[in-house]
Amino acid sequence: ERDKYENNDVAGVVTGLAWTKVGGDILFIESTLSKGKGNLTITGNLGKVMKESATIAMEYIKSNADVLGINPDIFAKYNVHIHVPEGATPKDGPSAGVTMLTSLVSLFTQRKVKKSIAMTGEITLRGKVLPVGGIKEKILAAKRAKIKEILLCDQNKRDIDEIKQEYLKGLTFHYVSDMSNVLELALTKQKVKNAKNLDGGDY
Amino acid sequence: ERDKYENNDVAGVVTGLAWTKVGGDILFIESTLSKGKGNLTITGNLGKVMKESATIAMEYIKSNADVLGINPDIFAKYNVHIHVPEGATPKDGPSAGVTMLTSLVSLFTQRKVKKSIAMTGEITLRGKVLPVGGIKEKILAAKRAKIKEILLCDQNKRDIDEIKQEYLKGLTFHYVSDMSNVLELALTKQKVKNAKNLDGGDY
Amino acid sequence: ERDKYENNDVAGVVTGLAWTKVGGDILFIESTLSKGKGNLTITGNLGKVMKESATIAMEYIKSNADVLGINPDIFAKYNVHIHVPEGATPKDGPSAGVTMLTSLVSLFTQRKVKKSIAMTGEITLRGKVLPVGGIKEKILAAKRAKIKEILLCDQNKRDIDEIKQEYLKGLTFHYVSDMSNVLELALTKQKVKNAKNLDGGDY
Amino acid sequence: ERDKYENNDVAGVVTGLAWTKVGGDILFIESTLSKGKGNLTITGNLGKVMKESATIAMEYIKSNADVLGINPDIFAKYNVHIHVPEGATPKDGPSAGVTMLTSLVSLFTQRKVKKSIAMTGEITLRGKVLPVGGIKEKILAAKRAKIKEILLCDQNKRDIDEIKQEYLKGLTFHYVSDMSNVLELALTKQKVKNAKNLDGGDY
Amino acid sequence: ERDKYENNDVAGVVTGLAWTKVGGDILFIESTLSKGKGNLTITGNLGKVMKESATIAMEYIKSNADVLGINPDIFAKYNVHIHVPEGATPKDGPSAGVTMLTSLVSLFTQRKVKKSIAMTGEITLRGKVLPVGGIKEKILAAKRAKIKEILLCDQNKRDIDEIKQEYLKGLTFHYVSDMSNVLELALTKQKVKNAKNLDGGDY
Amino acid sequence: ERDKYENNDVAGVVTGLAWTKVGGDILFIESTLSKGKGNLTITGNLGKVMKESATIAMEYIKSNADVLGINPDIFAKYNVHIHVPEGATPKDGPSAGVTMLTSLVSLFTQRKVKKSIAMTGEITLRGKVLPVGGIKEKILAAKRAKIKEILLCDQNKRDIDEIKQEYLKGLTFHYVSDMSNVLELALTKQKVKNAKNLDGGDY
Ligand SMILES: [Ca+2]
Ligand SMILES: [Ca+2]
Ligand SMILES: [Ca+2]
Ligand SMILES: [Ca+2]
Ligand SMILES: [Ca+2]
Ligand SMILES: [Ca+2]
Ligand SMILES: [Ca+2]
Ligand SMILES: [Ca+2]
Ligand SMILES: [Ca+2]
Ligand SMILES: [Ca+2]
Ligand SMILES: [Ca+2]
Ligand SMILES: [Ca+2]
Repeated sequence: ERDKYENNDVAGVVTGLAWTKVGGDILFIESTLSKGKGNLTITGNLGKVMKESATIAMEYIKSNADVLGINPDIFAKYNVHIHVPEGATPKDGPSAGVTMLTSLVSLFTQRKVKKSIAMTGEITLRGKVLPVGGIKEKILAAKRAKIKEILLCDQNKRDIDEIKQEYLKGLTFHYVSDMSNVLELALTKQKVKNAKNLDGGDY
Repeated sequence: ERDKYENNDVAGVVTGLAWTKVGGDILFIESTLSKGKGNLTITGNLGKVMKESATIAMEYIKSNADVLGINPDIFAKYNVHIHVPEGATPKDGPSAGVTMLTSLVSLFTQRKVKKSIAMTGEITLRGKVLPVGGIKEKILAAKRAKIKEILLCDQNKRDIDEIKQEYLKGLTFHYVSDMSNVLELALTKQKVKNAKNLDGGDY
Repeated sequence: ERDKYENNDVAGVVTGLAWTKVGGDILFIESTLSKGKGNLTITGNLGKVMKESATIAMEYIKSNADVLGINPDIFAKYNVHIHVPEGATPKDGPSAGVTMLTSLVSLFTQRKVKKSIAMTGEITLRGKVLPVGGIKEKILAAKRAKIKEILLCDQNKRDIDEIKQEYLKGLTFHYVSDMSNVLELALTKQKVKNAKNLDGGDY
Repeated sequence: ERDKYENNDVAGVVTGLAWTKVGGDILFIESTLSKGKGNLTITGNLGKVMKESATIAMEYIKSNADVLGINPDIFAKYNVHIHVPEGATPKDGPSAGVTMLTSLVSLFTQRKVKKSIAMTGEITLRGKVLPVGGIKEKILAAKRAKIKEILLCDQNKRDIDEIKQEYLKGLTFHYVSDMSNVLELALTKQKVKNAKNLDGGDY
Repeated sequence: ERDKYENNDVAGVVTGLAWTKVGGDILFIESTLSKGKGNLTITGNLGKVMKESATIAMEYIKSNADVLGINPDIFAKYNVHIHVPEGATPKDGPSAGVTMLTSLVSLFTQRKVKKSIAMTGEITLRGKVLPVGGIKEKILAAKRAKIKEILLCDQNKRDIDEIKQEYLKGLTFHYVSDMSNVLELALTKQKVKNAKNLDGGDY
Repeated sequence: ERDKYENNDVAGVVTGLAWTKVGGDILFIESTLSKGKGNLTITGNLGKVMKESATIAMEYIKSNADVLGINPDIFAKYNVHIHVPEGATPKDGPSAGVTMLTSLVSLFTQRKVKKSIAMTGEITLRGKVLPVGGIKEKILAAKRAKIKEILLCDQNKRDIDEIKQEYLKGLTFHYVSDMSNVLELALTKQKVKNAKNLDGGDY
């Protein structure tokens, strides 16, 4: 049995689309902050390339903090932990990049993630989103999981165009080329309930 | 000969359920604190995924310290050591997550663990409990070890329903979906005898 | 489908030429700065030799900071991250050296990279550019990607001379022997839009 | 030719029982202190599980320093080195746990180890002693080495009961279940000659 | 095509003789300084033994700084980077020891390396030079590269004596037994152009 | 051709006896000090067990500094480098322990090593010397190298007794059981020429 979309109550939890040897599936990227010295910890039985995605997302955020509305002082005051359940499944590849980026920006801004959205796409340090593979399988998994909106790289539109129309019913697609598009589409302006005040120090 | 449940006299000792190549067994998660700088050490001949469970439990606690009633200042003042006997047996997988979480919260709060309870389940950073495998074998091992109550992910209920009723006699099941449920069910309000005063510094 | 040259709007993004098992291709070297303590992070599924190129470029810049017009104090105040998309493709070899050098000097000086130029060549610590392999395949890839100018080691001229004239139409070649030539040819005097003031501290 | 028991003149030297591919043997655990910052170094061609025993012993001592009569301030002021001769023989497994524990407590308290005693048993972080294998071979080795008293986990009594009475002549057995029993039985109240004053700073 | 000797304009660049699977060749050892905390970085696709040569050279210089006329304070104020082009060729073995030593002393003293000299020989921590293999192939490569003088361990003289006289024409041999001989022969008294003032701090 | 004994002019250089796949040989242990923070570096293409010998020697010296007449403050003020030529030969095993110990004590006391002595033996942290293998081959190598005196573990006397008398002519044997014996026999009271004043700070 496959995973289901749950809710968007918590900052830093974002739904991604994965393509594993047993087919498409959704996966969750979770991230948390704790007082610390700026360390990044990554868990979830991940391979080297997927761990690199987390590093790229973190560095992109650090070097674009002003544009993203994040006080850069907080990077040195907190440790960040990114986790990808489920531990028994090895995971790798660059396609969770947009999901990790969204998770971390949600975490640092405490903004709520859009409801019922899932995403897949590689990220780059200069802010581009790159296309990824396994699109058809990922779309089918998204439907099973009650996802309503899907965010993809615009270069993946050709993969969607090849899928029969009946499989796409009920899904809205957002095609993006830049990481700023990802954040505009995936994050709401609203803070999560019980949002943490990262600048003020009440954490 | 299999292990037996012992007692709940010491903070940080929690009984888990394991599934090894020789069948089901119980295992103990033990944790201790010593004055230090916030390092986490993990021993017990553990594989990568099981070590990650310890990291996830620790980070969950750090980022939810206020809700858990733990003074976050103590994380930087103590080293934590988590050990899983028996060293001759290699162990891996995510299913000791709930057990590690309970062990660490017992340690940091010095609250007594509930008597005769055992548990199995994967944990996530956002506070969910995920289902695990080998349920039937684990239940049989629990009975042999004189366990009375068992804590499981609610998605594992279907596995229990498939076990013959006679094997379940004398066992109470607690199905949980959230890590807060785990702690409510597994920890008593009572402090252990000779509880350490972690905030005051008499350690 | 192969990559296309994009633009030169961002500091630190430079187009290189790569030779992979599926033929020639262009690749991008991206680099960013974030407040830090002088750490260098390298991602992109790179092998040991390609990572060493990044170290060589960084050390060359540090030990020639005055000639390059870079305030050496900034090296200890920022972390540098170099990324080479695309994560799914393993990459190795020394031929991205000139591209990494150009990327980092553009980053530290905030100077704009020349439009429509691509490059390939090994770098050395004493400032020489060394020849590399796969030139024919790289040139064909450059044309497909709408590259106009190509920067190569002068010892690679013989490889160009062996390519049929019709394949070279529309391409301008720059042959270099020293890393100072690379920077003169590849970087404009112009700062990028929204150039960061690295010395002043408004970052 | 097998090793012989030597003497108990030096703090931190304790005799253990080992089971190697060439049969039973005795081994020595040696430990020393030097001024430092609390580092633990372990040598002797040891495998991962045997190194973990040293870590468990150390952490048990740190978190029970008050009960053991050790000033916890000294842990941060000294480095500890544990060595297991003989370097040409690879060693592994958890059975030297009690021996390492006794060695370290002797070291930190400068108490003399009991004469002519040898031991084997796994240790846990919660203070239990666990049974180990190879008991018959270890007992025969102990006799050859002129050992008089043997300390074992009480769950290993069944293994002793299966050994012919004639092989046990001249040996006294101490069965323990807790690590506090180990220390009571294995350490004398007497300090070693030229005991170091660890608290006073004359080291 | 093989490498050619270039010039001696830059401090820290020294020509060595290498023996690879495709025969003899010359190689360059390059080193640079940058403000730092005394770290040593080594690149060039080198194996463990060749990296150790760099460490030995560095430690020899540190512990003989006074004899070498180097202010020992600078070791802690600069990072040293040693690179051996060409990255695509794996390199190993101890024979670049004398070359690395000469490179580093040239770097720390800013003295010019003698013109048209190449060298090969293992170094030791006590200051001896040891013989190495592949002498005949290395000599032929030196001639092709327009080398005029060759520095060797005196124990390698027997290898030269076995080479036909006609191959040695135009080459001068310097046989050394001690590392002080190496430096006397290979370094001029003259500083390089634009020599850096390492003590004064204008770097 | 095999190595020859050289001289005893330099502190920290001691002659050991090795048994390699091509038979017995002598080897040199070299050590140096440089201003630092107490780091130990070990080179010479050594395996894990041989590196451990260096650690054991160092820790033994640190914890017995007073008896050895060494000011313990110097351990934190200098880095120590131990090297074993020749880099092309992989070396391992515990038998260089006594040689490393002697080298380091000579280094820290600047005492001259006895002339024409060679040694082999494992060391322990409690100060015992243990027997080693390959004695016959080592003795023959020592004679070829013009060694006059040989230091061995007393438990290796039986190996000497099995060698034909004619091979032992001209050799004096010293059998030791304790590391203090090693130092008494192998180190003279005399300081080396140009001995460094480690306590005074003129280094
Ligand atoms: Ca799933
Ligand atoms: Ca994804
Ligand atoms: Ca068990
Ligand atoms: Ca469990
Ligand atoms: Ca591509
Ligand atoms: Ca390139
Ligand atoms: Ca033995
Ligand atoms: Ca033992
Ligand atoms: Ca070459
Ligand atoms: Ca060389
Ligand atoms: Ca030799
Ligand atoms: Ca030796």
